[in-house]
Amino acid sequence: MRNPDRSWPGALPPLAADIAARLRARHPRVHCITNTVAQAFTANVLLAAGAIPSMTTSPQEIGEFAARADALLINLGTFDDERRAAVDLALAPFSAPGRPWVLDPVLIDVSEVRAAYARGLVGRGPAAVRLNAAEFAALAQTQADAESVVRCASRHKTVIGMTGAADYVTDGARRLAIGNGHDLMGRVTAMGCAASALVAACLAVEPDAFSAAASALLIFGIAGEIAGAGARGPGQFAADFIDAIHAMGGNDIMQRARLT
Amino acid sequence: MRNPDRSWPGALPPLAADIAARLRARHPRVHCITNTVAQAFTANVLLAAGAIPSMTTSPQEIGEFAARADALLINLGTFDDERRAAVDLALAPFSAPGRPWVLDPVLIDVSEVRAAYARGLVGRGPAAVRLNAAEFAALAQTQADAESVVRCASRHKTVIGMTGAADYVTDGARRLAIGNGHDLMGRVTAMGCAASALVAACLAVEPDAFSAAASALLIFGIAGEIAGAGARGPGQFAADFIDAIHAMGGNDIMQRARLT
Amino acid sequence: MRNPDRSWPGALPPLAADIAARLRARHPRVHCITNTVAQAFTANVLLAAGAIPSMTTSPQEIGEFAARADALLINLGTFDDERRAAVDLALAPFSAPGRPWVLDPVLIDVSEVRAAYARGLVGRGPAAVRLNAAEFAALAQTQADAESVVRCASRHKTVIGMTGAADYVTDGARRLAIGNGHDLMGRVTAMGCAASALVAACLAVEPDAFSAAASALLIFGIAGEIAGAGARGPGQFAADFIDAIHAMGGNDIMQRARLT
Repeated sequence: MRNPDRSWPGALPPLAADIAARLRARHPRVHCITNTVAQAFTANVLLAAGAIPSMTTSPQEIGEFAARADALLINLGTFDDERRAAVDLALAPFSAPGRPWVLDPVLIDVSEVRAAYARGLVGRGPAAVRLNAAEFAALAQTQADAESVVRCASRHKTVIGMTGAADYVTDGARRLAIGNGHDLMGRVTAMGCAASALVAACLAVEPDAFSAAASALLIFGIAGEIAGAGARGPGQFAADFIDAIHAMGGNDIMQRARLT
Repeated sequence: MRNPDRSWPGALPPLAADIAARLRARHPRVHCITNTVAQAFTANVLLAAGAIPSMTTSPQEIGEFAARADALLINLGTFDDERRAAVDLALAPFSAPGRPWVLDPVLIDVSEVRAAYARGLVGRGPAAVRLNAAEFAALAQTQADAESVVRCASRHKTVIGMTGAADYVTDGARRLAIGNGHDLMGRVTAMGCAASALVAACLAVEPDAFSAAASALLIFGIAGEIAGAGARGPGQFAADFIDAIHAMGGNDIMQRARLT
Repeated sequence: MRNPDRSWPGALPPLAADIAARLRARHPRVHCITNTVAQAFTANVLLAAGAIPSMTTSPQEIGEFAARADALLINLGTFDDERRAAVDLALAPFSAPGRPWVLDPVLIDVSEVRAAYARGLVGRGPAAVRLNAAEFAALAQTQADAESVVRCASRHKTVIGMTGAADYVTDGARRLAIGNGHDLMGRVTAMGCAASALVAACLAVEPDAFSAAASALLIFGIAGEIAGAGARGPGQFAADFIDAIHAMGGNDIMQRARLT
């Protein structure tokens, strides 16, 4: 991915370090509409980063939870009628400017119903969309190359973070590739879901959505690298990953970031 | 908290050690209506302590599960219509004397709908209520000081366990403060929910609800302390905490209890 | 259990080693209708073995997920109306020959409603049924001895894997007992559910259902033994178990298998 804005790779690590510190200082509330497989791991990643998760989808009360939250995650995994209703109720207090929400269109490449629903949600103004290449292809109905991602972000006025062997982040103008990460991240369930939740948490403390999303994915990738260095397998890795998020210091970010 | 019954701090550790041993000998069944975020961790804490968890909320079968259970937990996290119906069906076999159930009014400080529902449940005779200070304030509609908690327990003829930097337990007459615990307990999701489940398990093997609730919270705090001593972060801590519950011996309780 | 087919105990370890390798090479998709308590652990066990889990129960999309899956697990824990509808939709693409699905009738000994439903499902042709002795007794309405299990498998033309201190596997003609395992497996929630999911994964890469089910339970028992050798308690054990599944080599299986 060519980067027209030369200041970006260099500017991100100190900014990400500062955003990580803001999470610990401000403890933003992040409401997550997410699948039941991912709930506990997602909550533990948010807590480790300093954020405060809530996860109800009950129609009687989600409005109150969303209204008090500083950011919202909408994850489409194990999607059902209750969650669809919950999305509408939760989005109401997030339609105002400065109220960031993130879309994670999990596995929309498997279900056309889910993909169509996700395309509708992109039109409702998410601050960021986090997905993998197969999900991007289903969302944008095109192939998942760098230029398509940039065009899609530009057209929808959102930030897209496409994760994989490398992570791409773009708002249609700026673009970055993050080389950090570890193979074991693909062997632990809910890793992508938790990454999206961390994007939401960073959006709660950083108004520039591109900076927030890129910082979240950089911190996430570095945590994977730190945990992967010592782990025997995916079981220990999952615990070590949470500990790496919890212990992440500015120096880790400054020294380990691999950006282009 | 002043303690009018001087025998209490000293009497608790040997009683808690005995209750921990009873859990391992009797394997009480604890049915948990709890939020999906907390289910797996709660089940693992109960299994580590010697209890046998079940967690269905299906209206067709919860009555059978509750009828066979020795104690019941009602946790209001991620509350929805199905769980509301489940509560009524599960409480039916727990309305008789000697059938203990615990209320955990999770996050009722965020949702007035949930708070109103919790206030109704307190009137249906829980053996114990486990909550934090913000939840107590929402439940009792007053500030969360020691005297308010004692009055609330007395008025509702229940035991209240209010957890935080220190844990307070009272039945309106007796009162205790437990100083054990660890900061990392606040960085792992479902810790409070699992504490409430352990209160339910202890109630299944100890008829005095004050003794049961205080023992559960003492064992929980000591396990946090043991796990916290060696943990790198909240990921490893969560596994070590379960191991500490599993390995908890009478000596750990006798030597580590910090009570006033 | 007497074994009329003398080649079987000896034939299984190399076959199980090969099936473990096929999982890593082919990455079969396993759709799991399972209880929310077990979802994350089950997904992580499948990922560690090389399979790709999906877990939606939404009626709008489960048909698409099931159609693309290579095997299906139907687990009756925390069963409700949505899951009942999901079962019918998911079974539709699995009614053809060569499309394997597994039934795990969790805790049907506690609920007659659930037991009756499970008996109906056995008549719909599962490739295998994984359960414990109490669940078998409720399913077959007889005592759980070796001859009853063989007769039940024969009558229903399925493979039954009955797990416990030893695991029995039979298709009505062949029969095996697996002596591997560890006591801590009974102290971690969702162990049985995850074993059933691994049976489903093995069925996706091995057409002989008896070989697939026996291989899955052998790999599972050996992983328990490896994890149990070093674990302090059930918390660490759960992570180590996943790592043992992930690292399981042909030599581990060949050297550790204890079969009769």
